[in-house]
Amino acid sequence: MNRRTVRFMPDNRVVQVPEGMDLHRAAAAAGLELKSVCGGEGTCGRCAVKILEGKPEVGGGNLSPRAKKQGLVLACRTLVTDDLVVEIPADSRLADHQLADGSTGRVLAENTYDRLAEFGLSPLCRKVKVKLPEPSVTENGSDLSRLLLGLKEQGVEGDITISLDALRALPETLRQGSWDATVTLAEISCRETGPRLEIVRVEAGHSEAPPYGLAIDIGTTSNVVHLVDMSTGTVLERRGTYNRQAMYGDDVITRIIHATEEKGGLNDLRKAVVETLNGLIESALLARDLDQEEIVAAVVAGNTTMAHLFLGLWPGYIRLEPYIPAATSFPVIRAAEAGLQINPVAPVLTLPAVASYVGGDIVSGMLAIDVEEHEEVTLFIDIGTNGEMVLGNKDWMITCSCSMGPCFEGGGITFGMRAVPGAIQRLEIEPGTYEVKVTTIGGARPRGIAGTGLIDALAKLRSVGIIDRAGAFHRVPNRRWRTGAEGPEFVLVWAEDTEQGNQDIVISESDVKNLLRAKGAAYAAIRTMLQTMELPPEAISRVFIAGAFGSYLNLRDSIEIGLLPDLPPERYSFIGNSSVKGSRLALMSRVARDKAETLAHQMTNLELSEGNTFMEEFVSALFLPHTDLSLFPSVAAVPSPDANAAGAAGTAAASNEAAVGAGEAQSQAQTQVNNENEGQHS
Amino acid sequence: MNRRTVRFMPDNRVVQVPEGMDLHRAAAAAGLELKSVCGGEGTCGRCAVKILEGKPEVGGGNLSPRAKKQGLVLACRTLVTDDLVVEIPADSRLADHQLADGSTGRVLAENTYDRLAEFGLSPLCRKVKVKLPEPSVTENGSDLSRLLLGLKEQGVEGDITISLDALRALPETLRQGSWDATVTLAEISCRETGPRLEIVRVEAGHSEAPPYGLAIDIGTTSNVVHLVDMSTGTVLERRGTYNRQAMYGDDVITRIIHATEEKGGLNDLRKAVVETLNGLIESALLARDLDQEEIVAAVVAGNTTMAHLFLGLWPGYIRLEPYIPAATSFPVIRAAEAGLQINPVAPVLTLPAVASYVGGDIVSGMLAIDVEEHEEVTLFIDIGTNGEMVLGNKDWMITCSCSMGPCFEGGGITFGMRAVPGAIQRLEIEPGTYEVKVTTIGGARPRGIAGTGLIDALAKLRSVGIIDRAGAFHRVPNRRWRTGAEGPEFVLVWAEDTEQGNQDIVISESDVKNLLRAKGAAYAAIRTMLQTMELPPEAISRVFIAGAFGSYLNLRDSIEIGLLPDLPPERYSFIGNSSVKGSRLALMSRVARDKAETLAHQMTNLELSEGNTFMEEFVSALFLPHTDLSLFPSVAAVPSPDANAAGAAGTAAASNEAAVGAGEAQSQAQTQVNNENEGQHS
Repeated sequence: MNRRTVRFMPDNRVVQVPEGMDLHRAAAAAGLELKSVCGGEGTCGRCAVKILEGKPEVGGGNLSPRAKKQGLVLACRTLVTDDLVVEIPADSRLADHQLADGSTGRVLAENTYDRLAEFGLSPLCRKVKVKLPEPSVTENGSDLSRLLLGLKEQGVEGDITISLDALRALPETLRQGSWDATVTLAEISCRETGPRLEIVRVEAGHSEAPPYGLAIDIGTTSNVVHLVDMSTGTVLERRGTYNRQAMYGDDVITRIIHATEEKGGLNDLRKAVVETLNGLIESALLARDLDQEEIVAAVVAGNTTMAHLFLGLWPGYIRLEPYIPAATSFPVIRAAEAGLQINPVAPVLTLPAVASYVGGDIVSGMLAIDVEEHEEVTLFIDIGTNGEMVLGNKDWMITCSCSMGPCFEGGGITFGMRAVPGAIQRLEIEPGTYEVKVTTIGGARPRGIAGTGLIDALAKLRSVGIIDRAGAFHRVPNRRWRTGAEGPEFVLVWAEDTEQGNQDIVISESDVKNLLRAKGAAYAAIRTMLQTMELPPEAISRVFIAGAFGSYLNLRDSIEIGLLPDLPPERYSFIGNSSVKGSRLALMSRVARDKAETLAHQMTNLELSEGNTFMEEFVSALFLPHTDLSLFPSVAAVPSPDANAAGAAGTAAASNEAAVGAGEAQSQAQTQVNNENEGQHS
Repeated sequence: MNRRTVRFMPDNRVVQVPEGMDLHRAAAAAGLELKSVCGGEGTCGRCAVKILEGKPEVGGGNLSPRAKKQGLVLACRTLVTDDLVVEIPADSRLADHQLADGSTGRVLAENTYDRLAEFGLSPLCRKVKVKLPEPSVTENGSDLSRLLLGLKEQGVEGDITISLDALRALPETLRQGSWDATVTLAEISCRETGPRLEIVRVEAGHSEAPPYGLAIDIGTTSNVVHLVDMSTGTVLERRGTYNRQAMYGDDVITRIIHATEEKGGLNDLRKAVVETLNGLIESALLARDLDQEEIVAAVVAGNTTMAHLFLGLWPGYIRLEPYIPAATSFPVIRAAEAGLQINPVAPVLTLPAVASYVGGDIVSGMLAIDVEEHEEVTLFIDIGTNGEMVLGNKDWMITCSCSMGPCFEGGGITFGMRAVPGAIQRLEIEPGTYEVKVTTIGGARPRGIAGTGLIDALAKLRSVGIIDRAGAFHRVPNRRWRTGAEGPEFVLVWAEDTEQGNQDIVISESDVKNLLRAKGAAYAAIRTMLQTMELPPEAISRVFIAGAFGSYLNLRDSIEIGLLPDLPPERYSFIGNSSVKGSRLALMSRVARDKAETLAHQMTNLELSEGNTFMEEFVSALFLPHTDLSLFPSVAAVPSPDANAAGAAGTAAASNEAAVGAGEAQSQAQTQVNNENEGQHS
């Protein structure tokens, strides 16, 4: 097969690829990751690149007229049939994630806490120092039996196995340390028979170094690794980045399709996430000057699909009714089996899931908070591509998952983007003048709008009267209001003020409709859980909002658009990446490990739209904030902009508008339903 | 580095090797295995080859003048510095082993039996058929939880783990079988908590095929694999061949030296034995048209060094005082870790050892017999390069190991050879005429003398008066008696009657002395055990002789030379390869697996020459049959040939001779002791 050379600019990275490979893959082969929401189907328009030299075979796909005019082509639809020089615009590139390391800008410490003290220290691996008698003609037991006797003297008994690696090194290790040794013991839980111990590693002499472990969160979008001192539970290093699986699609459904329909697809995805993690691990180890050998345990939390892909389990039936995962409890495997570049025999524990769409990340999050300890009802929400929620108290817990669509992660919105530098995170619109003030992540020149910025935009567009309660645009006499290629749109940032400099950043009516569907789904899910338990929203005493997205959420705006229930702000806590927090707890405590299994079994999974009111709730929630204003008393109390504009008559108009909007929303919901039937959680 | 081409004849096999590699390795690289007793040190003279073309660098070494005259060179001392054509004589080649498959020509079935009925069927792996309900929206548990429920319905409960391989395949397997499945469950013993179950494999539908397992004996010389139907315990195929480790030396000591002193040596040896086993496995599977996947368990028995080398454990301290193995109980590993080409997650159980020189092969042999069930005292002997013995009854068991030297395996004897076709197995010498009648293995033309033939020779040379009780040659007026290069020798076969046709097969005085030391060591070990327990030889009610060598032993001759105690023949049973028999029992029964651990702990290891009478016993046993004739009443009762020849005076002469001989033996013993101090069990 002929090979062609492709040079990617501005990185100036060169790769040789077989003729006929698409440019998306070629970039991946060069170590450059392009965006992809559609998984290379040519439909998301995210991987646009510019051909600077050479003549490839260009296959079309969904590219905006603007992009076409700029001479861009879609990398996934462009085949290498010539030597090429290709420019990757910043927009098409996966960038570093601002919050991906699991630390957050705003952790409300007063409302969250570390449950480790409550659970007690009993880490997955611990070190035991032994002093062994020197062998002699009369004391001539094997090295291993000598070691086991030494452990027994330290109070370690029971069924102790030893990894082949540790046993292979044992004779030299014991002699090197003159019969002083430090044994790293892993404790593997067995539900019936109690924990089983394995000797993972033996060091010569008495080592003062603690055993190190990893708490890992595998998100669909971001992966996070925390390096933990297992003698104390202290997090030493935090690392995060995008999940490299993104090159195969942005959401779990496109990834499952790649895994199950492409030859070797499952392994592609398994490798992509493992490589992502290994990159993070390497960086953390470098910072602390640690060897792979010293990392002797890992706990992984991820949604059910991520857990499947990480372990190489067939995820195909997660996507198909009745949505059956291969497993919800996962075997403890060795790092070498997982492909993690740590001590090859380190146990790797994957936290159990509840169901296909409520995964170990949620179970992990529940470890981090204390729902099961309280009489009062707690709501836990993890917002990402999917919204997963748990409602419960010490007596019951129900959980559900709803597709939020990719809006809040930057997908499906004209200028949507992830929460990376240059993304608009907050915005203000001045009533009357409609002048816009934006705040971007990192204070960079604006490049697009992050999820939190979109929530702000929705709330502000509504409060200044540009959109009505159903999300329809009202013409306002301002140059920012205009009719674009896809209908009415509002200019948030003029082209000359943007990073790119060549186009205005706008939000269109269709963007608004997508956002309404996303927030509507989330609220409908919460309401459905409440109604299943016959509880009013006020019954919720505490709301924990997890996820990097949650960490930057504007609470007031989120309530005003009807994304979150209208509760006093003091009931809300933003807990950041609770998935990695729970992983750490499981790494550090047997109680947490056992509790994870118990929690996974205790939570009742509510399949939305199966014998419940979700569809009705969804339709009702496609308004700002909701059809039923009594659910949002604090929002309803504020005079509506329409009322301001139209005086007393405005109220009736608003009601009419609501009625019209309801019909409109109904048909939109219908579309959503049809989509959902194809792949419920997309 | 320059590479050279070597063509080996008559195989006509060509290999390219780096310049400077020795011919022994070059032959191995060509898949041809040459003999080696010394491990490539140039001292054993076994790997002689003929250079037909080219000029290698010849390094000398211990080669007989005869071989030199024939133009032979030692492969291990000859470096490839030119393109070569090399002939490998049959004598220098490792040949197929007659009895290596563990079946024997003479199994005294009336004295041995299959303990499986006693132990009961509870194999290491069993199959369970399950019928699972089809998943639905309301029954939407994971595939794994569905499977575990199905197993519970079949009465299988407790801590059940699943191998990652099996879990990866589970979703497709269950659907392919329309929710009927056959689960292969492995039962891993845990001493404290009882057995732990692992799902090794899941088949679609209800499979009628049994689970297959392997019973493996790793001998220093020969490896044996039995393919077992684990539903019944039936042995389906038997395979055996030489352990390819032989290319690194014939005995455990030279192999330990290679493993510990050569770079990568341990891995060389590990690979050599694993490759040997894989060859046998492949052949057995081909015969039954089975896939690797279907072999779901293996039990391995071998001496302690063999177990270490198989598992890649550091064997260095086995050889050095105080002789400490890395382990005597070995972790259960997966076939993939071991490198065995069967189902990669199949559990591989290595039977426990007692000490450095009493290994899992002996424990395995003890499983096959029932010493621990009887009041009466039983002696168990496994004769090979080392002699390992157990003496005991239901209340006590002692065990020891003595170096027999390589005599009985064909080493250290001028015309010694292994028990392969052409080896003299039996011989008769006509009194007076001294005419010799030999019987060879396979009825082939004689090529050398097997161990059993050497025992015959010793007995017969003594009975016709050619050697005296101390092993010294008496000149007899016959052309077969002559003085060779190394002293007196007796011609067993004339050159024209041999396979090679170019030299007489002789037995020399130094051969006889070597044989005396070997048989003396074995008998001294038995006597030392007896004396430790203050028992006379007659106290032994049963003797079980294990090993391929034992199977062809001439019992009467063995008693006459004083190798075995002078007991009535009905007390002796030849049980063949008891090591592979015990492996099968462990494969088939939990009782046997647990008993193996118990037995290994019950046996008291007697270090010979440590606080016991071994050295005195050894010196006394360097006679035919022994210094103390009262120990061999049945031998003493037969008139001695010296008495025949010399009449009444002969008795006194014999006594004198015995006295002289005793002094001589003493100094020989001293030599032996010195050798032993270097590497006790060589």
